[in-house]
Amino acid sequence: MSQEFSVFNPPKRTLMGPGPSDVSPAVLNALSKPTLGHLDPQFVSLMDDVKSLLQYAFKTKNTLTMPISAPGSAGMEACLANLVEPGDKVIVCQNGVFGGRMYQNVIRCGGEAVLVEDPWGEQTKLDKLASALKAHPDAKIVAFVHAETSTGVMNDAQALCQLAREHGCLTLVDAVTSLAGSELRVDEWGIDAIYSGSQKCLSCVPGLSPISFSEAAIEKIKGRKTPVQSWFLDMDLVMGYWGKGAQRAYHHTAPVNSIYALYESLRLVHQEGLENAWNRHQQNHIKLKEGLASIGLTLAVDEAYCLPQLNAVTIPEGVDDKVVRSALLNDFNLEIGAGLGQFAGKVWRIGLMGHTSNEDNVNYCINALKTVLERG
Amino acid sequence: MSQEFSVFNPPKRTLMGPGPSDVSPAVLNALSKPTLGHLDPQFVSLMDDVKSLLQYAFKTKNTLTMPISAPGSAGMEACLANLVEPGDKVIVCQNGVFGGRMYQNVIRCGGEAVLVEDPWGEQTKLDKLASALKAHPDAKIVAFVHAETSTGVMNDAQALCQLAREHGCLTLVDAVTSLAGSELRVDEWGIDAIYSGSQKCLSCVPGLSPISFSEAAIEKIKGRKTPVQSWFLDMDLVMGYWGKGAQRAYHHTAPVNSIYALYESLRLVHQEGLENAWNRHQQNHIKLKEGLASIGLTLAVDEAYCLPQLNAVTIPEGVDDKVVRSALLNDFNLEIGAGLGQFAGKVWRIGLMGHTSNEDNVNYCINALKTVLERG
Repeated sequence: MSQEFSVFNPPKRTLMGPGPSDVSPAVLNALSKPTLGHLDPQFVSLMDDVKSLLQYAFKTKNTLTMPISAPGSAGMEACLANLVEPGDKVIVCQNGVFGGRMYQNVIRCGGEAVLVEDPWGEQTKLDKLASALKAHPDAKIVAFVHAETSTGVMNDAQALCQLAREHGCLTLVDAVTSLAGSELRVDEWGIDAIYSGSQKCLSCVPGLSPISFSEAAIEKIKGRKTPVQSWFLDMDLVMGYWGKGAQRAYHHTAPVNSIYALYESLRLVHQEGLENAWNRHQQNHIKLKEGLASIGLTLAVDEAYCLPQLNAVTIPEGVDDKVVRSALLNDFNLEIGAGLGQFAGKVWRIGLMGHTSNEDNVNYCINALKTVLERG
Repeated sequence: MSQEFSVFNPPKRTLMGPGPSDVSPAVLNALSKPTLGHLDPQFVSLMDDVKSLLQYAFKTKNTLTMPISAPGSAGMEACLANLVEPGDKVIVCQNGVFGGRMYQNVIRCGGEAVLVEDPWGEQTKLDKLASALKAHPDAKIVAFVHAETSTGVMNDAQALCQLAREHGCLTLVDAVTSLAGSELRVDEWGIDAIYSGSQKCLSCVPGLSPISFSEAAIEKIKGRKTPVQSWFLDMDLVMGYWGKGAQRAYHHTAPVNSIYALYESLRLVHQEGLENAWNRHQQNHIKLKEGLASIGLTLAVDEAYCLPQLNAVTIPEGVDDKVVRSALLNDFNLEIGAGLGQFAGKVWRIGLMGHTSNEDNVNYCINALKTVLERG
């Protein structure tokens, strides 16, 4: 091959899109430490700490708490492929892209998916779920997205879980964007299976998906009549590696350096305090909202259920979505997110996640947007 | 949580096990560069270069060549889940752990698996495959491991592929340990689907699985009557992101920093020259073998098909496997691998993969082993 390849030097962006968020220098530093073997006693000991810190971040005592060695969409698949057996009826609440993805996954697992739909930009309605639960008394699982990254909507996870449990259903929750950014209490709210992503409010590099399963979920997995269709994501096998220290068995080679980074990002959350992190996200959201108002922009989502870490901003009439985003990227090294699906071209998605969520970034973003919009 | 968590500082090991191998400082440096958004034009351009370099390393022109955002076992699953439809008959050659894993995956995909078994430590026999192909004229795929990491055996990929193709079968090859360490020619040998791992002879951090599919494989995937059971690994969806530059659509968030590292490791292979890398692995294997002989140790595998990058060493009678490995790790910061499965307690696996494969490491390993064994 005659082509020449030179060292890649990415520019330093400010990442205010839907994730990845800005990764702190401490996490990047942890990432680049010398690689250990995936069965090295020192790495195994780090795995125990990662598990403890994930339990802290999820507010759970669940033993089966660990990072899947792949992105959030694999975490989604891990939860569904393990819990859903062919023929299982699963109620999926959809009010954005990721509820739809859950629905697709249920079908691919051989489950019977019942969709509870609400408009994009609105919350999942409790009475709709209640009707679906009454109409489908044989439903085994209720699945929904806590923080819908495609629309900026927070669903009422606590109320949805309570309703599902009243009807004897297990609950399966997408917390990709909520973990460490908004109030989330796995044990107290009765969540049976949950997955997240490393690259949102944890501000780790993308590529890992923290998950957690309750005892009831493990019970369901143990009672399966058919094997989990995925070998890579079969929790029974994965736990041979992520289970108790001394008996760790090889399943796959863990992404060692990414786990260093995850540990460091969780350590920083623990150092700040989880509730403090939630509050910080809320405070900076309010500042962003005020700043947007000052330049004539509004959020596309009602404040009552607006995500603090992912703000859907209505693109004003006559403004070219792509021109603005390109100008922000090229002239300000600032990334904001495009709209997805139904919201494409209609909203920008401004992320204030994890390390990104600070007042300087709010001001920088507002000033950059102001400058670009004033150019016409 | 009252527990305190301090910054993790891993020791600097010399990694001479079955992978991960030593990651060069250049690759660790690339890994820790500022994170870009996964749709950032500069990252998209890097993805194109990664694809070109993977084509170079695989010796293929296959358009569908890219890294899966997960470890090698997910790469295995990606190849099988996409190519195997329920009811498809697949001949799997097994002479170690990883052939057995392929077999499990075929079954989980709903395929009918026919096993061609050979003893651990020996090659897959061509006449056994020939008999299986005659006995199963309806077989659609032949799957085997090129470099069996559990035993240190190199299977004759070229001959196995030729035989499979003579019987109208597609070929599916595990090249986790062979890529960039041993001769491998995807197009010339007629390989239809292949997967590898980032943490072996590429000496990148663990967590990515380069894959490549031929036109015939893509044809089979396009002709599927049932959807691929995995949403995360469905090539049709993945290619929406890894396909042509301008039309990239969001599928999952790519592990951006790991891709930086993969690019750098591939760039280093390209700089050295692929054939030079193959030769280097062979030369250092010979030096290792001579060194082992000088301290009374022998390889468990016939030189005719012994892997240069992964050397199965017979543990002498009366020597305690674990005591030796612990002493190497604790006193020399040197990791060598334990035996797996049938070979547990019987062999050590000494890796000379990628960046690890150099004369200094050979000498260091022999001297350390000598010291530890002489202690008794």
